[in-house]
Amino acid sequence: MSIKFKGKTSQKFPIPKKMKAWVLGNPGELSLVNKIVEMPNKSEVLVKIDAVAICATDLDVISRGPPALIEGGLPFNKNFTPGHEYMGTVVALGPSVDEFNIGDRVTVEIHSGCGQCKRCRMGMYTSCHNYGLNYGDVNKGHRANGFTTDGGFKQYAINNINTLIKVPDTMSDEEATLVVTAGTTMYGLTELGGLIAAESLVIIGPGPIGLLGVAVGKALGAGPVILIGTRDSRLEIGKKLGADFTLNIKNETDIVQAVKKIVGEKGADYVMECAGTEQALNDAIMMTNRGGKICLAAFPHNAVKINIPHMVINNIYMFGIRGEGKSATHRAMEFMKEKKFDAKLVHTHTFNMIDLPIALKYARERIDDAIKIVIKPHNV
Amino acid sequence: MSIKFKGKTSQKFPIPKKMKAWVLGNPGELSLVNKIVEMPNKSEVLVKIDAVAICATDLDVISRGPPALIEGGLPFNKNFTPGHEYMGTVVALGPSVDEFNIGDRVTVEIHSGCGQCKRCRMGMYTSCHNYGLNYGDVNKGHRANGFTTDGGFKQYAINNINTLIKVPDTMSDEEATLVVTAGTTMYGLTELGGLIAAESLVIIGPGPIGLLGVAVGKALGAGPVILIGTRDSRLEIGKKLGADFTLNIKNETDIVQAVKKIVGEKGADYVMECAGTEQALNDAIMMTNRGGKICLAAFPHNAVKINIPHMVINNIYMFGIRGEGKSATHRAMEFMKEKKFDAKLVHTHTFNMIDLPIALKYARERIDDAIKIVIKPHNV
Amino acid sequence: MSIKFKGKTSQKFPIPKKMKAWVLGNPGELSLVNKIVEMPNKSEVLVKIDAVAICATDLDVISRGPPALIEGGLPFNKNFTPGHEYMGTVVALGPSVDEFNIGDRVTVEIHSGCGQCKRCRMGMYTSCHNYGLNYGDVNKGHRANGFTTDGGFKQYAINNINTLIKVPDTMSDEEATLVVTAGTTMYGLTELGGLIAAESLVIIGPGPIGLLGVAVGKALGAGPVILIGTRDSRLEIGKKLGADFTLNIKNETDIVQAVKKIVGEKGADYVMECAGTEQALNDAIMMTNRGGKICLAAFPHNAVKINIPHMVINNIYMFGIRGEGKSATHRAMEFMKEKKFDAKLVHTHTFNMIDLPIALKYARERIDDAIKIVIKPHNV
Amino acid sequence: MSIKFKGKTSQKFPIPKKMKAWVLGNPGELSLVNKIVEMPNKSEVLVKIDAVAICATDLDVISRGPPALIEGGLPFNKNFTPGHEYMGTVVALGPSVDEFNIGDRVTVEIHSGCGQCKRCRMGMYTSCHNYGLNYGDVNKGHRANGFTTDGGFKQYAINNINTLIKVPDTMSDEEATLVVTAGTTMYGLTELGGLIAAESLVIIGPGPIGLLGVAVGKALGAGPVILIGTRDSRLEIGKKLGADFTLNIKNETDIVQAVKKIVGEKGADYVMECAGTEQALNDAIMMTNRGGKICLAAFPHNAVKINIPHMVINNIYMFGIRGEGKSATHRAMEFMKEKKFDAKLVHTHTFNMIDLPIALKYARERIDDAIKIVIKPHNV
Repeated sequence: MSIKFKGKTSQKFPIPKKMKAWVLGNPGELSLVNKIVEMPNKSEVLVKIDAVAICATDLDVISRGPPALIEGGLPFNKNFTPGHEYMGTVVALGPSVDEFNIGDRVTVEIHSGCGQCKRCRMGMYTSCHNYGLNYGDVNKGHRANGFTTDGGFKQYAINNINTLIKVPDTMSDEEATLVVTAGTTMYGLTELGGLIAAESLVIIGPGPIGLLGVAVGKALGAGPVILIGTRDSRLEIGKKLGADFTLNIKNETDIVQAVKKIVGEKGADYVMECAGTEQALNDAIMMTNRGGKICLAAFPHNAVKINIPHMVINNIYMFGIRGEGKSATHRAMEFMKEKKFDAKLVHTHTFNMIDLPIALKYARERIDDAIKIVIKPHNV
Repeated sequence: MSIKFKGKTSQKFPIPKKMKAWVLGNPGELSLVNKIVEMPNKSEVLVKIDAVAICATDLDVISRGPPALIEGGLPFNKNFTPGHEYMGTVVALGPSVDEFNIGDRVTVEIHSGCGQCKRCRMGMYTSCHNYGLNYGDVNKGHRANGFTTDGGFKQYAINNINTLIKVPDTMSDEEATLVVTAGTTMYGLTELGGLIAAESLVIIGPGPIGLLGVAVGKALGAGPVILIGTRDSRLEIGKKLGADFTLNIKNETDIVQAVKKIVGEKGADYVMECAGTEQALNDAIMMTNRGGKICLAAFPHNAVKINIPHMVINNIYMFGIRGEGKSATHRAMEFMKEKKFDAKLVHTHTFNMIDLPIALKYARERIDDAIKIVIKPHNV
Repeated sequence: MSIKFKGKTSQKFPIPKKMKAWVLGNPGELSLVNKIVEMPNKSEVLVKIDAVAICATDLDVISRGPPALIEGGLPFNKNFTPGHEYMGTVVALGPSVDEFNIGDRVTVEIHSGCGQCKRCRMGMYTSCHNYGLNYGDVNKGHRANGFTTDGGFKQYAINNINTLIKVPDTMSDEEATLVVTAGTTMYGLTELGGLIAAESLVIIGPGPIGLLGVAVGKALGAGPVILIGTRDSRLEIGKKLGADFTLNIKNETDIVQAVKKIVGEKGADYVMECAGTEQALNDAIMMTNRGGKICLAAFPHNAVKINIPHMVINNIYMFGIRGEGKSATHRAMEFMKEKKFDAKLVHTHTFNMIDLPIALKYARERIDDAIKIVIKPHNV
Repeated sequence: MSIKFKGKTSQKFPIPKKMKAWVLGNPGELSLVNKIVEMPNKSEVLVKIDAVAICATDLDVISRGPPALIEGGLPFNKNFTPGHEYMGTVVALGPSVDEFNIGDRVTVEIHSGCGQCKRCRMGMYTSCHNYGLNYGDVNKGHRANGFTTDGGFKQYAINNINTLIKVPDTMSDEEATLVVTAGTTMYGLTELGGLIAAESLVIIGPGPIGLLGVAVGKALGAGPVILIGTRDSRLEIGKKLGADFTLNIKNETDIVQAVKKIVGEKGADYVMECAGTEQALNDAIMMTNRGGKICLAAFPHNAVKINIPHMVINNIYMFGIRGEGKSATHRAMEFMKEKKFDAKLVHTHTFNMIDLPIALKYARERIDDAIKIVIKPHNV
């Protein structure tokens, strides 16, 4: 920090030189260290992280190493901090930033695109063609918090203003960490098509994405909304979030027929698949009607056997999503701000900073019926 | 015909009481019989069929029985005439028809939707939810020539005006039979996305659909257009139709890398898969760039092993098409009328009505390098 | 009815030979007469009309003659029954209809397109190119209840199944008459763009369309929603329906600045103009941000002076809507069924059949703060 | 230039310290001065300008002062260089730029959005909400060459890589300056709708935009394409560029009827208005069919009287465009590269750098039937 900071700070929010941060060593090794607090550049702010949720992808990143290592072969960074579902308070503004004020509470999108590739120029910044390129000679400036750049299991983070959404006073820190998950389902459902109101929607898999998919789908006007899962406790939460019908796969001899009994023989208009198994994916294909759409919000780790002929003959559209694109997080926030559904139902536990390893164990093993677990980085 | 015909006819085009028609008995059995010439109702015209092309699907229908039998269990109709790529001359107008005149040359779309289901109301009439329902108590009026209702290997056919496109004087009968094939590729490419100009397009499989896909894609402005196949003679025709590059799979150790060498490491923007094999489908997934799109214009007969994780992680859109939807045939005709490509290059043989069995053999066994074979029903 | 009826009826719903119906003579002359009850054909049902609301357009039709006379020069039909916002009970099914059952409560869209023109084939059936052509030699089958074909100020009506939406038991007859109005705003707002959630929406003019526009916009996720009007009582209802802010033009020196004070200096994302004055239209242009959209749900009767340069320089999209297209009524029904807003707030009065002239006077003169007035045709 | 340049240069393209540049003093005053050649930053290149065309807007900027002064009140910059339709050779790469190589010939889009506002994030960078904000404390980095930042009537220019399109060897410098004009019409026509092929298109006003609109519309597949103007010489060029019909307003008693005689009584599907008069705009409204679309590529300087009722009743969409958005220039280049039309037909004159004032006079007074005039900045 020898270069003088040209942005703005406030005495109300003093910024320390150093902060606590969890860093990943070899896959599976986490340690709590001190990191220097960097200051924001043009189009950036510094966020004091007030809460960060644990996502299933974090477990993956921690046990297998950062995705950059997996996806693209970037140099393994042993100072890397995971965590990508966080929110906090703006405590410093980079030069020229007037979109936010110091003291604003904000929640944070994961992706900041390069702004130059063809996908970014189309608004598809989560599918940036320069993904991960923010090092060395070909630094294109792409950032994905907790994936290719430092994430949120620490006390302060720099964020591009493109990734920020203001949090209203009426929303708790914990609820605000869920906006990006709701935004991911919003993106998937919006991509499924704009005529969603009054059309049938099936969600397979009542994890956090599936449950918030139910909530967002219902708020968008889908009907009926059907949630499919294996645990009644999760299905029960789905009902509270707006599912018109729930189906426990264990009680059904033929899940496709069970869906058709509700929506009619033609099948469902939209299916959002959040289970990630071969069976679930083929069920999705078989329960979708001619011309219908399937969004894959989860996926198996390997190639799987898919009923392609049925899909093609029936003009079914199938696609994956990649996080929270096309400003979907802003739309999710508006819905949550207006209390169109109670996202807090998927938040089950809160831990202090020091207890991250315990929290990860709860998340991994679903101890005590854990769904979403939140860490408070300043509760040390 | 005891009910008096309320539409219009002309002495210039006398309509016989009976006509020659090929009918399908048991799968594989074709016989040439006399059929009564019916007259058109409201919104319909009678077409004197001047030319009808053979499509690979016709071979399937003839060897396996009509698709209604296969898809939906409708009663097997032993008087059924296959054939769906035909053109001809309007010789009678049903009541209220003023969109066409007697004497107009027209080419014919396959599908006439019910006009009532949700897909028809969205313009997706090829994905009509009342597909095949044109018999008995729940007659919804859907028609698919040569599939669920009588087709074109005969001398006269009734057609809904929604299925007709005028043929200009400058276009031969043979070329006009190719409009619906070009329209199918136009539909697939349009669904791939409106920004196609200046984006890379790969076509896998140089059959009639693949070859006309090259032509239509190039005319739409795609670039580069790459055609992949196994026979140099077909690839050569692809070049004449607009392919910037052709790749013979037999000469390539890694077809995905061969494509990337042309379009860049990110991969291609759009892929239209017309080969219908597991390998081709997975190649398509691996050569498509992040956020890109794959149209399946062909498909394997059974479930196949698909690299779903790569597809989801890369936000790839995949979908089948179902014939020539969304008025794509009209757009294809405009391109062909303006000579933006020479579709005649895929027409190789013409036979008389009586020679249909020989023509089918040519098509099935690709005798004499046959691509598109045309029958002239009035050349008896 | 000499031809035997081939559909279905039920003893539970006996159908009289004759019914009471209001008919329009010369402009402004209404008389209550007996009309024959016709039976439904293919794709049609007979609806016993339980409630019909009065729309401002009805007043226009009654005082100026049917729009066919005004728009297209069709023969003035002195047996014509106006009224287009009606609901009722299905009492007979035409042949092949299995989408509805006798006894179903339904509400009714105005337009049934010809199904053949280019707009109908795109799903834009309210903009049918064969509008009004349902007479004589070029009968294309287009119907617009209460405009080009008989409407709802009578006891029974035939309707194409495309125009029907099922009414849930939990919804009153009166509320169900409002679905088509809500559907019209849904169409306008959907056309304004799919990213509406989290974007600012201004509604000018708190008539029934404007008020339900507020409700539908808020339910879609727009925010903030601002309602502009001249009467505090109407603005108050707007607040109950979801307006975040209301502005009484009488209290504002500069309505454009008043809006910008709320949404920011760039202006609003979407404006729905329901006042129909030159001033309102120009205000709409000046308060819309660069790249924003304006839907004209009302319009002046004559050409007006418009700030075209500002519109073009700012890349503003402007368009009219034409009723309740693209299945928007189904989406509106889903929102109302789920009680996302209380449409009943705009229903103020109910009258018996015989009292239609009084009801029209209430509507015309806004007696007793009348907003939506409903007639019960079987309360004679 | 005290900071060391971190990008790349090449000895093949030595970069001088100073260059010749025309600058605008008070409105109307141009002088040729020496300017320092700046070096590119991250995501930028330095372009040696080989050719720059004169646009009607340049005449406006020069006679009235830079648009920043007019539109937004930014400080009048007396060192400002106008000119926005230029092409040239890449001679230096900013840090991290690997999308281009030194020596690449490129043509240049006008707008580089801020990348942060809602429009930029949607791909609508020509409608950037931070337009012109590239000075002082709230520098958002937006650039519009020749409008808010220095333009092309000089020898070297820095450009963001987002604004660059590669020029093939087969295209002359002069033709390459026309790509941005063609791109503007491509943007307008694309916004008019993706189903343009086989639909009727009317272009009013055969200036450079109108003429290239004819060419691009025809290449997209519109048909028939009708060009309306007042000068037969221009209409003749329109024919060569693809107009199926031309109408000289001076020879027509009723231009709307003349169009309908060609396209049918319903009217045209799309109209692109490039004349900018009240009459032309109302003609456009009257000749567009129900549900059709009007793009305003030109506009009157003041509010004008518009037939709004006809527009609303007929569900007509109307909008302005703002330059060359949504990557339309890339699509235009692909069409021009493939010789789908001969843009060179609109290029009439070439002048040396020193002769810019004469060239402007030719452009303003249309001396010698001037259409597009090109300056060669290095021909001094």
